Amino acid sequence: MLPRNAFYAQSGGVTAVINVTAAAVIETAHQHRQQIGKVLAGQNGIIGALNEALIDTSLLSAEKLAGLRHTPGGAFGSCRYKLKDLQQHRAHYQRLIEVFRAHDIGYFFYNGGGDSADTCLKVSQLASQMDYPLRAIHIPKTVDNDLPLTDNCPGFGSVAKYVATSIREASLDVASMAKTSTKVFILEVMGRHAGWITAACGLASETPEQGPLLLLFPERRFDQADFLQKVQACVAQYGYCVIAVSEGLRDNEGRFLSETGLTDAFGHAQLGGVAPVLAQLLQAQLGLKCHWAVADYLQRAARHIASATDVAQADALGKAAVELALAGHNGVMPGIFRLSDAPYRWEIRPQELEQIANMEKPLPADFISADGYSITPACRAYLTPLIQGEDYPPYKNGLPHYVQLNHTLVAKKLPPFEV
Amino acid sequence: MLPRNAFYAQSGGVTAVINVTAAAVIETAHQHRQQIGKVLAGQNGIIGALNEALIDTSLLSAEKLAGLRHTPGGAFGSCRYKLKDLQQHRAHYQRLIEVFRAHDIGYFFYNGGGDSADTCLKVSQLASQMDYPLRAIHIPKTVDNDLPLTDNCPGFGSVAKYVATSIREASLDVASMAKTSTKVFILEVMGRHAGWITAACGLASETPEQGPLLLLFPERRFDQADFLQKVQACVAQYGYCVIAVSEGLRDNEGRFLSETGLTDAFGHAQLGGVAPVLAQLLQAQLGLKCHWAVADYLQRAARHIASATDVAQADALGKAAVELALAGHNGVMPGIFRLSDAPYRWEIRPQELEQIANMEKPLPADFISADGYSITPACRAYLTPLIQGEDYPPYKNGLPHYVQLNHTLVAKKLPPFEV
Repeated sequence: MLPRNAFYAQSGGVTAVINVTAAAVIETAHQHRQQIGKVLAGQNGIIGALNEALIDTSLLSAEKLAGLRHTPGGAFGSCRYKLKDLQQHRAHYQRLIEVFRAHDIGYFFYNGGGDSADTCLKVSQLASQMDYPLRAIHIPKTVDNDLPLTDNCPGFGSVAKYVATSIREASLDVASMAKTSTKVFILEVMGRHAGWITAACGLASETPEQGPLLLLFPERRFDQADFLQKVQACVAQYGYCVIAVSEGLRDNEGRFLSETGLTDAFGHAQLGGVAPVLAQLLQAQLGLKCHWAVADYLQRAARHIASATDVAQADALGKAAVELALAGHNGVMPGIFRLSDAPYRWEIRPQELEQIANMEKPLPADFISADGYSITPACRAYLTPLIQGEDYPPYKNGLPHYVQLNHTLVAKKLPPFEV
Repeated sequence: MLPRNAFYAQSGGVTAVINVTAAAVIETAHQHRQQIGKVLAGQNGIIGALNEALIDTSLLSAEKLAGLRHTPGGAFGSCRYKLKDLQQHRAHYQRLIEVFRAHDIGYFFYNGGGDSADTCLKVSQLASQMDYPLRAIHIPKTVDNDLPLTDNCPGFGSVAKYVATSIREASLDVASMAKTSTKVFILEVMGRHAGWITAACGLASETPEQGPLLLLFPERRFDQADFLQKVQACVAQYGYCVIAVSEGLRDNEGRFLSETGLTDAFGHAQLGGVAPVLAQLLQAQLGLKCHWAVADYLQRAARHIASATDVAQADALGKAAVELALAGHNGVMPGIFRLSDAPYRWEIRPQELEQIANMEKPLPADFISADGYSITPACRAYLTPLIQGEDYPPYKNGLPHYVQLNHTLVAKKLPPFEV
């Protein structure tokens, strides 16, 4: 049987290590040239497949390919574009199959979160209905860490390491200054619906002596009176207080705190930012000088302080995806299965996409302390292995030497398609 | 002659490397036990001297002392407390001399920015007037990089490395997503009066291919129409735009942009944050999806990505301060003198405090490009050496292993003093 080509695409918010997975897919495919021809990458994710904008990764130099392993962001471009159900978006799914057919694509590797797991499943199903031979494999990736049936999601461990490091560092800063200046520091982190990243901030304080740290989880409704009391007690005891807050914190009526209170000169609600809202509140109600930071993309792009464990898993999952496809799997995702916490041992097991697509893994209730402001030992035991090890990028001129790819597209064979 | 004790204090905003200087002062003093007895550190800076809260650094273990070299923040506590002129604050200056006399302090090392250089000079002058033998040495430190007569200020190089790395990483993120999502990313950085840190962001883009980067300097008044045009042109050409903005950006009437436009529900101005103001503007005027980050303390506490050059200079200046004092200098500051850009060669020269105190070193006009939105080659040549080399802290449990000191104070000998 002649080798068939593979299609790889990045989906949704990018991470510090998604390119590690990309490199692993490409390199593993190269090791099986008798079964896999070229790996074609979708320019800007699945939109690249719809538009037949396919990047020929066989033209990447060995140097560029190696460089991908330490370059954050999505080197082939990603997209926020959700394919709806087969009924509504049937033409889109059929177009995908047409493009795959035109370029003899027999392997579909889709690297993303919950939505893309769903898309991957539907593509697999439609291919089967259309008698088009395709092995569709989803590869997990999301800093939100909310996919089921995998111990964690690549990208999350590096964000966890970044936020815990950053808040530990900022804690030392505010502790130094609290006598005469800033008393409260607030760090706003990602995770609108699930508090995984907020929980990771809790790793910064391993003992009470490492500083007072209040976590505000999106899973808990914000209780203003209780919060003010907690901060006041912290400042009374330690002289200062450090707070990590999820961008998705909501008030008692379910409204995002970031959308309350602040308006521009025209009365429009302010764009995001729960940290400044809390700072305003503490200043007004307790008269405490506050500083605040919003990490935003810095947290998920921080390849300079990636977790070596995260990098290893992003690599292993890319490799496993190709191997699963070669072994005949279809409609599955390689998932990380945890064998033990300490030492952290894990292996990769295939999981059925039907059980994954559109399911979210919430932060377990027993990972949040009874008072709602810190993490439990069970949470710490879960998180700690994920941030182990440093995987530093090479530096040039004092800065990380990240690669940038020139996207060379293969010749189009089909008429255009209106996405 | 019997050895006399030394006093060391940290002043103003702390940095990622001020503890490197502290360790160098203590260790260099230890190497000269015949001349210097104990090094007593002010708890919370100069306030510690006024309150006679003196930390006995001779009790620090070798392990803790070594740990100081990779721990950000001010390990002895710092303060924002400016001593006014001798007329207004004479009692305070006299109190300092009394405390020094009570603890046989013959050496005064003050580690800070412009204000503390001024205080150091005044203490030196008053000691002389009071016939109290004292050698007062100022040691430069400020992320603002605004001290004259030194090539740069310890702390700045590490912030520069952090912000340039962070914005380079975030640029890759937004470049990946711009097709269907965020088109503009804005990073707000410190430097209310001088654009040194904003300029450092410019290092992230070494070639036009490394991404479009607009810098908004506090030295230039914000021209809204021009800015909107620039962003629009960027997005048209590259598909996205990345912006670094100084917290101190002002509008045409001289008002901080962070204080315009946004108010809380009660009509109070929002606490800080020029990045969200710009995001709001771009969203409203150009309909562009924006993300923004405010680095705040994260930038000046980021010891995990400190510049090795910065660490080396923080160390050398601490050592030089002690050596200058031993050589009989008084009322001076060891300054870094640049011998060449590439290779970067520098040496330390004593500078008179009279020429330093309360002087600010502005960003030279020829460091900003003609259009006002980027740095010139001269600026790049100045900045590049300062971010060279990585000086990683040790890690434990996946996080930087920073030390925390137990402050053991020497017994008080004087009645209390009302600060």
